[in-house]
Amino acid sequence: MQRISAVSEMTAWSREKQRQGETIGLVPTMGYLHEGHLTLIRRAKEKCNRVVVSIFVNPLQFGANEDFAEYPRDLSRDENLAAREGADVIFAPLVKGMYPQGFHSSVEVEKLTDRLCGQARPGHFRGVATVVAKLFNIVGPDQAFFGQKDAQQLAVIRRMVADLNMPLTIVGVPTVREPDGLAMSSRNVYLTPEQRQAAPVLVRSLREARELIGQGERDAAKIGGFIRQRITREPLAVIDYVEIVDNDFLQPVDKLAGTCLIALAVRFGNTRLIDNMVVEV
Amino acid sequence: MQRISAVSEMTAWSREKQRQGETIGLVPTMGYLHEGHLTLIRRAKEKCNRVVVSIFVNPLQFGANEDFAEYPRDLSRDENLAAREGADVIFAPLVKGMYPQGFHSSVEVEKLTDRLCGQARPGHFRGVATVVAKLFNIVGPDQAFFGQKDAQQLAVIRRMVADLNMPLTIVGVPTVREPDGLAMSSRNVYLTPEQRQAAPVLVRSLREARELIGQGERDAAKIGGFIRQRITREPLAVIDYVEIVDNDFLQPVDKLAGTCLIALAVRFGNTRLIDNMVVEV
Repeated sequence: MQRISAVSEMTAWSREKQRQGETIGLVPTMGYLHEGHLTLIRRAKEKCNRVVVSIFVNPLQFGANEDFAEYPRDLSRDENLAAREGADVIFAPLVKGMYPQGFHSSVEVEKLTDRLCGQARPGHFRGVATVVAKLFNIVGPDQAFFGQKDAQQLAVIRRMVADLNMPLTIVGVPTVREPDGLAMSSRNVYLTPEQRQAAPVLVRSLREARELIGQGERDAAKIGGFIRQRITREPLAVIDYVEIVDNDFLQPVDKLAGTCLIALAVRFGNTRLIDNMVVEV
Repeated sequence: MQRISAVSEMTAWSREKQRQGETIGLVPTMGYLHEGHLTLIRRAKEKCNRVVVSIFVNPLQFGANEDFAEYPRDLSRDENLAAREGADVIFAPLVKGMYPQGFHSSVEVEKLTDRLCGQARPGHFRGVATVVAKLFNIVGPDQAFFGQKDAQQLAVIRRMVADLNMPLTIVGVPTVREPDGLAMSSRNVYLTPEQRQAAPVLVRSLREARELIGQGERDAAKIGGFIRQRITREPLAVIDYVEIVDNDFLQPVDKLAGTCLIALAVRFGNTRLIDNMVVEV
């Protein structure tokens, strides 16, 4: 496996492989790889001849009071993990390589981005869409792999790709969970032991909501209220949002119908965790 | 020459040509082709194996009170002209093919877009950047050709391509002029005979400014004042702006140095004409 940090070198590598008729899968990450990322890499290996894992903690998607500086980083550990899964390239550009002086462009996806995490994190999804568009142009992948855990991010990227006619396929991959159900996240390392023990309340509340829906409940307000009540019982958990929306445009629904997304964000101290469940009724 | 209107068919055509090792030049236009466009097509023919001319009057780049509905259109005339120059494809998508229901994405280039034409036309360059990004993704050209006459558009597109790492080369082509110097523009057809006679005051004032600079004048305020005075003498002309800016970021300069752009917009009745001159000192 090779590590590439220069943008031009990354593009040249991809062009050469594609000239040889090989397909390229891209797994965009912010590093500090966990089992969720490794599942994305495995999926990419299955579907493409070559796999590029990008590792870039993107300053554009962090708010002024967010954890950009503290976000966990360990590139040599990431390299070992990615190599073991058979990745061909770790693309780890520098911030000044991605955003040189004079950088002034951005990609914006409206409507899908002002709700859910977009409400607490203004500008976040503009930063995500912009860096992902850049990575797509630099690497030129045939397919790119994203976790369903970041459901809003996945919806925004699917929308961007469709709207701007980007020439690749987006593959969503189911959330990978710890044995107790907690969704894997690089931010889980921030949790104190007590918070870590409390955190599975997110997935439990979603699973219990699924049972309720299985029993026939379709009223979004009732299902949302049920989830809020379950989470509020956990003293360390502070709800940021619990929302039930359609899966394409992330607009609130009154009654569950078709494919819906139940999405939630909950704070444990300073750590904000998200989880979600797609429901087909 | 073939006419393609479906987005997917355009992409398939390009992929097939590129698989055969051919290069593609794209000439994005809003149609109603004139000698300026034909010069772009000729340039593209010289530099690429295949030439695609897109014809799309892009609603996103017109303001509410602008001339989207009245913008001159004549597709069969355009087809004849493009075919005669050896274009391979006219890509003429429908508005609903480019912006289907649910379209919510855009590309924004900041700083370069709030001045000059961007001031009188808020949202214009966002519409331009968005449609051009889409055309680049749909056609996948190796090179794209734009006229220097729309100097701000050219600067915005160069910035977008650099910032978002779009994998193609932008070629700027010098402005083509009528015998009396008026820059070719599809909007020239709007002019009354009297306005048409008065319109070359734009290029004359730029040429006289160049003489002044040749004599050693470097003070931007003096040069701008000189041009304004020359244009104001023409009773049918109403100045929108006369600006002297750096050629990369379009920021005003006090003293001419390096590569500067003298750009102007002038109204004749309801018709707004633009022209510019790049000056190297």
